[in-house]
Amino acid sequence: MDFTLTQAGLEAVEEALVAAIDSEVPLLNDASRHILTSGGKHLRPHIAMLAYLAVGGEDLMEAVPMAAAVEMVHTATLVHDDINDHSLLRRGRPSVHARWGRTFALLTGDYMFAKVYQLMAPFGADYNVIMANACTQLVEGETLQAVSAKAGEIDRGTYKRIVALKTASLFEASARMGALIGGGTPSEVNALANYAYNLGIAFQVVDDILDVVGDPVALGKPVGADLSQGRGAFIAQGERAILTLQPAVEVAVEEDDPIQRMMAKLRTSGAIEMAQHQAAEMVERARRALEPIGPSPARDELEALTNLVLERDR
Amino acid sequence: MDFTLTQAGLEAVEEALVAAIDSEVPLLNDASRHILTSGGKHLRPHIAMLAYLAVGGEDLMEAVPMAAAVEMVHTATLVHDDINDHSLLRRGRPSVHARWGRTFALLTGDYMFAKVYQLMAPFGADYNVIMANACTQLVEGETLQAVSAKAGEIDRGTYKRIVALKTASLFEASARMGALIGGGTPSEVNALANYAYNLGIAFQVVDDILDVVGDPVALGKPVGADLSQGRGAFIAQGERAILTLQPAVEVAVEEDDPIQRMMAKLRTSGAIEMAQHQAAEMVERARRALEPIGPSPARDELEALTNLVLERDR
Repeated sequence: MDFTLTQAGLEAVEEALVAAIDSEVPLLNDASRHILTSGGKHLRPHIAMLAYLAVGGEDLMEAVPMAAAVEMVHTATLVHDDINDHSLLRRGRPSVHARWGRTFALLTGDYMFAKVYQLMAPFGADYNVIMANACTQLVEGETLQAVSAKAGEIDRGTYKRIVALKTASLFEASARMGALIGGGTPSEVNALANYAYNLGIAFQVVDDILDVVGDPVALGKPVGADLSQGRGAFIAQGERAILTLQPAVEVAVEEDDPIQRMMAKLRTSGAIEMAQHQAAEMVERARRALEPIGPSPARDELEALTNLVLERDR
Repeated sequence: MDFTLTQAGLEAVEEALVAAIDSEVPLLNDASRHILTSGGKHLRPHIAMLAYLAVGGEDLMEAVPMAAAVEMVHTATLVHDDINDHSLLRRGRPSVHARWGRTFALLTGDYMFAKVYQLMAPFGADYNVIMANACTQLVEGETLQAVSAKAGEIDRGTYKRIVALKTASLFEASARMGALIGGGTPSEVNALANYAYNLGIAFQVVDDILDVVGDPVALGKPVGADLSQGRGAFIAQGERAILTLQPAVEVAVEEDDPIQRMMAKLRTSGAIEMAQHQAAEMVERARRALEPIGPSPARDELEALTNLVLERDR
């Protein structure tokens, strides 16, 4: 990613995040800072700021607290996800859950949600409604995913709903709020929201693919983790791995561990390629959504992002 | 409690709560409704509405979404608390944790926090800042309590800080917002906030006392639960129970179970009476805080509440 345009803004976002979580209770400060400074991609604030610039916004600092709030929502979700998934590693570091235990991880996530609210309060009702809706959808997506994992089945429609709710909604909200703060016209705001929504879906599908074929060192977490939790694009049904975007071709592989066997099947059945094809289609939609946006360096970067999302390895 | 003045408002609050948690994900709807309709006292919305009326507010419905949000925060906290405390019973029903499991209880609490945000968004920045601060303090109080419980020690100052953060802050915010929506003068708003803050502290101290001497049937949960978790006004230090408001007199009792022994000690050492004395003092401060408020039925009810908080058995 080329952060040239948003670099000053993203640095201010990092400062705003660390300032926001300052607490008289040292543990909340330490645990929040641990995850917030662990080298996240800051993709959502980046998109929020590019949307701001793409509609002609002139002072990136206007968008900083909102962009920080968006990153804070995302990070709070990771802290709570890691409890539910028993994940010990996150971005190559111990998860909050692993380091401080379940009770404090739960409270740290709650604390960060409260801070989202605090960062957003000054923006007024319109923005807070957008953010509240995104938070609601995010939790709905996580829940739907957990329900499906528990039931051990998921169909294509449910997978799409999960991805739209848990990932695309916050991408969309980021771009929508950025464009609104930048003074975009309704058609520009909707175009950028639509762009980010489709980009978010592609991003999540690629994430789910990386869980199967990614490099654990680049990812900073073990592969197969989502799969073994019944999460992600693929879900275990007894011995069969179902690629929910497209039923996988059955292939025979020699592996003793059921998760390893399933991953091998997914790699050799053409399922990965089909998921990649789906991601490419969403990225194409994202690109087309940008048509109403006039030319600018920010627009170019938004367009370039679509390829980066497809080609990323972490 | 006499709900005559706020009854129509509280009925609207219950409707607003059930409407707010309506979700396309049935589990979130069911689990949220399970706890929201389990017969909570609705003390915080009651106080918010009395504050609204006491400053001359004329349309209780104006305050309904805010009062619902306050109750939603409180309820979301209970759902997450029950995970951390492994509590199986809440208000005489299975806790969300017991019925749906830990993962879904965590997500249900998160969902309800998102709904708080959605209910509050239309009120604008001033109100959202008050609510965000109260949410932050609430989580800080819970965390400080968990840190103290883990360390196995708590001093009087820390206990007071915990009670102020985890309970009094939301009481205060309820009254402050109610009075603001009702159009109170700054001095009226501060008086009512001060009243509710002190009432909140008394309420929590009485809660902690009831955990030791209460009737489990009236309470809808076992007694000694907070004590055994190292929570509440009393905390276990090896074999000694420390009443943090005032050191307990050492008395000898015959009990095999360490928690039962501690409870017996607390009951016979005069510690309970000392805590009751503290609660009475806070209630007296709450009563005095009402002085700047002109006479009205709502003011009378606020005053009457102070005795009810002291004398409650559940």
